[in-house]
Amino acid sequence: MDSIPPELHQLRKSIDNIDAALVHLLAERFRTTQQVGKLKADLSMPPSDPSREAAQIERLRNLAKDADLDPEFAEKFLGFILAEVIQHHQELAAGEG
Amino acid sequence: MDSIPPELHQLRKSIDNIDAALVHLLAERFRTTQQVGKLKADLSMPPSDPSREAAQIERLRNLAKDADLDPEFAEKFLGFILAEVIQHHQELAAGEG
Repeated sequence: MDSIPPELHQLRKSIDNIDAALVHLLAERFRTTQQVGKLKADLSMPPSDPSREAAQIERLRNLAKDADLDPEFAEKFLGFILAEVIQHHQELAAGEG
Repeated sequence: MDSIPPELHQLRKSIDNIDAALVHLLAERFRTTQQVGKLKADLSMPPSDPSREAAQIERLRNLAKDADLDPEFAEKFLGFILAEVIQHHQELAAGEG
């Protein structure tokens, strides 16, 4: 199975570059949400904020539509990230961070 | 609950910028995997490729470590994306694309 068509090889190189960029952006996003988590813990604010989350979902769905990305997928993606973030915040609030 | 601390407001603006970048990179990633899907369907190649996926996981885990991102999360993230991609490829192979 070593005979990868050249066109597939080129497309995979693009995917690998995009994935490296995604990983670095996610790392930066979690650095930022860690600061949010610390701030919320210091101010005794709740880890989750439903009105903020509703606004984020709406905004990302619209950005997705403009970029021809399935808005359902964009919403699922945000949910996937937020679940991780809220778990981090709860750990911080419990003093495990 | 309209009194958002200024520091939180600033952090949220950074998160919103990062999320817009993530959505656009994801849109570009799916544009690329759609080309992969068409190519694989044309060449009657299977939608998934376990050895390619194993290499992607290993590479992203290492990139994550260098960026101080939890490698477990990076692997979960790739799994989340690949599940969507493989679903698209199966739709293409079934002639629904």
